[in-house]
Amino acid sequence: MALTLYHWEPNANSGKPMLALAEKGVDYDSHYLDLLSFDQHKPEYLAVNPEGTIPALVHGDRVLTESTPIMEYVDEAFDGPSLRPQDPAARWRMRWWMRYFDAYFAPSVSMLGWNVFVGPSVRQRDQEQLANAIDRIPLESRRIAWRKAIFNQFSQEELDESIRRTRAGIEVLETHLAANRWIAGDEYSLGDINGFNLAYALPLSQPDHCNDDKTPHILAWLRAIYRRPATKETWAKGKTDMASRVTFLEG
Amino acid sequence: MALTLYHWEPNANSGKPMLALAEKGVDYDSHYLDLLSFDQHKPEYLAVNPEGTIPALVHGDRVLTESTPIMEYVDEAFDGPSLRPQDPAARWRMRWWMRYFDAYFAPSVSMLGWNVFVGPSVRQRDQEQLANAIDRIPLESRRIAWRKAIFNQFSQEELDESIRRTRAGIEVLETHLAANRWIAGDEYSLGDINGFNLAYALPLSQPDHCNDDKTPHILAWLRAIYRRPATKETWAKGKTDMASRVTFLEG
Repeated sequence: MALTLYHWEPNANSGKPMLALAEKGVDYDSHYLDLLSFDQHKPEYLAVNPEGTIPALVHGDRVLTESTPIMEYVDEAFDGPSLRPQDPAARWRMRWWMRYFDAYFAPSVSMLGWNVFVGPSVRQRDQEQLANAIDRIPLESRRIAWRKAIFNQFSQEELDESIRRTRAGIEVLETHLAANRWIAGDEYSLGDINGFNLAYALPLSQPDHCNDDKTPHILAWLRAIYRRPATKETWAKGKTDMASRVTFLEG
Repeated sequence: MALTLYHWEPNANSGKPMLALAEKGVDYDSHYLDLLSFDQHKPEYLAVNPEGTIPALVHGDRVLTESTPIMEYVDEAFDGPSLRPQDPAARWRMRWWMRYFDAYFAPSVSMLGWNVFVGPSVRQRDQEQLANAIDRIPLESRRIAWRKAIFNQFSQEELDESIRRTRAGIEVLETHLAANRWIAGDEYSLGDINGFNLAYALPLSQPDHCNDDKTPHILAWLRAIYRRPATKETWAKGKTDMASRVTFLEG
């Protein structure tokens, strides 16, 4: 069955299915969409995923969206090393963390990233074109997020709460990794892939709170994931210079 | 292995593991905690779950928290009818919806519920006792939520966004159920249990937007779940009069 992944940079949410597929050794047709050019809201892609979100995995006639459920699908539908522990309690632990990442930690980290990176990256473009681009976004929640990021409309209260949650999340993660090698315990799993994509840039964005002195276990865990062959192979598919900004992950 | 569930009302998040256990025919020791009396922040329970959240499932020496990951654990660890479809694509659909419910739809419905029900239910008690009770809450995010609910501090912007998301969620759910009998497609699954606990009260809280005329498929789906023996058995464990308020689910 044909397998195509529509994705942006491997260091964004797109990296979650990319890393899972790479760990399992599954080949796929890679279809890169430039998020900052709004490729994901163009008619060709909306014909694939009407919600206009990235990533999307097309397997035969199935169109799968949302990176965390896609990762579970990848592990269930393909051969290769299992990315979920067999023990139900370890699997619960993996899912507890994926829920924590997705519902609590990631939205806060993401809002800060949109505020300092995505917004400024596109803000200087032609305002009418930007307004038109926003109007084409199918999901209202995404329209609101893009509008706030582009026109610098996140409130200080929202940003403060995201900073508070991000720093609280760093502490929770450090405590867990001080007692566990991997997110689920002894085995590398989808929980680590999920967490890596969220956390690898924290030493850049929260340098006073996430560093070798204060969070040595997070740093060691990030480096262990970054040096995996599947991660190297996946990050090589990126088109931006992110790798040059995270040299602290090497070694 | 001993199995104990610490839970509040079966119509709250606690109902998710309760319904999953009942569908599978698994017996457990039921330990009721009164959320509105802050039982979940008392030392006896913090010795079980230091985060002070409900529900928690104790299986032998394992302590499991967070209702959605607990449900997946219940389906993996016990015999009885499977509550997850075998087909990986249907299973992806189930998890897509559980993520949508947990990360997007439920927080909005929940904020409105806290604002109109939980806050007013406890607000009139002795203020010093309330302040002390809030100070004992271990998770900062829960302390913030309780404080806002009790002292009526949700901002109009927050409430408006929750109303918007709740109504958008109702439309998305109605569209899905018009084309699918159950959340995952043809089979009853954890996705339906998750959704039922979130949605059964929408005809009460959003009567102009969720009713037999506008969302007939949601209403038919809720009634089909409500009449299941596992649901009847579970709701009978409630101590409040919620059943008398949802007579529209009968028949």
